[in-house]
Amino acid sequence: MGRHKVLNTPAIRRMPTYYHKLMLIQALGDEYVSTSKLAKYMSIDPIVVRKDFELTGATGDRGIGYRVDTLIEAIRNYLGWNKKLRACLVGAGSLGSALLGFEEFSEYGLNICEVYDISEKRIGTEIYGRMVKDVRNVRVSVAESKVEMAIICVPAESAQEVADELVAGGVRLIWNFSNTCLQLPPDVVVQREVIAGGYALLSRKRKEHFS
Amino acid sequence: MGRHKVLNTPAIRRMPTYYHKLMLIQALGDEYVSTSKLAKYMSIDPIVVRKDFELTGATGDRGIGYRVDTLIEAIRNYLGWNKKLRACLVGAGSLGSALLGFEEFSEYGLNICEVYDISEKRIGTEIYGRMVKDVRNVRVSVAESKVEMAIICVPAESAQEVADELVAGGVRLIWNFSNTCLQLPPDVVVQREVIAGGYALLSRKRKEHFS
Repeated sequence: MGRHKVLNTPAIRRMPTYYHKLMLIQALGDEYVSTSKLAKYMSIDPIVVRKDFELTGATGDRGIGYRVDTLIEAIRNYLGWNKKLRACLVGAGSLGSALLGFEEFSEYGLNICEVYDISEKRIGTEIYGRMVKDVRNVRVSVAESKVEMAIICVPAESAQEVADELVAGGVRLIWNFSNTCLQLPPDVVVQREVIAGGYALLSRKRKEHFS
Repeated sequence: MGRHKVLNTPAIRRMPTYYHKLMLIQALGDEYVSTSKLAKYMSIDPIVVRKDFELTGATGDRGIGYRVDTLIEAIRNYLGWNKKLRACLVGAGSLGSALLGFEEFSEYGLNICEVYDISEKRIGTEIYGRMVKDVRNVRVSVAESKVEMAIICVPAESAQEVADELVAGGVRLIWNFSNTCLQLPPDVVVQREVIAGGYALLSRKRKEHFS
């Protein structure tokens, strides 16, 4: 952890929202966008929007706002989304399938090209155009197909074993949706997605507002 | 937004992870737990763990650590998870189905008792024991069944309309998984879940480490 820079986590988490909205604004033909418009859309302070954009190096013009195409490019570059990312997904249950169906991922440079599962029922079937492969061959398969990232959606009790195989196959980026913390070598970058994290925030807001 | 307190978002997001791990530790029969054990498990600094627990009001004993049952109770109380929450889910596609299947939600006091969808194919079927109802009656139905929270998993283009109906039916807490920001009255608490937010973090880490 020592060599990792401290990331501005909330700002980075907001980037896909800006990016997706900017793509919609661009599709409508608008050339400029104001921070106040984006702030209103996201129910946040315009100062927050401005600071977030500063991170990406984008600059706006007082009174006119930001050029939409420049902003999109700046965010894409800040997140490295201009460099396509080949990924695999392990565990094609309902959550895994939902992720395979997220069309906006392709906007973000994410190409989930390999899918693995343990169930005989799923192996050999297609989900959103991807053939499900046997997870028992995952180590060799990810090495051959040169995937850089793995999305783990298996039950918590299998997640560590799956992650170890993926890392042995050369994967260095892991997006973990399983309900457990993975213990992996320090050169592997892991992002854990705790869906219940948002529920905890909502729970705390409920407690503050309604009780 | 003015009346909302500023929440310690990253700390609150970590609470379900502590909570779930503490439940597992308790199931193994351990009475005490150290911050260093939890910190190691989550790959974070023990100081962060201690500060997070301070938020909940829990106190530990130097050298012994925290009582597991006291910590569980403190987190439960901090998040209001001791008061059961009745919720509905709208949009029973793959993401919605995945959420219905998350067993840990019941640990967190969340009871998703009503499910709505627009598809004739899904209405009348059962998903994890819940009968899917017609979303066209959602306003009356949520009012009758007195659900406090709604989980929205519909396509972005339908999300605002669904949210308006839910609010008209008395829902004041919304957990929004649709890829759009909802515009709702100020007395409605909305938590947006941007799954791509974690991917943005991973993307930025990839850029810093591997390029």
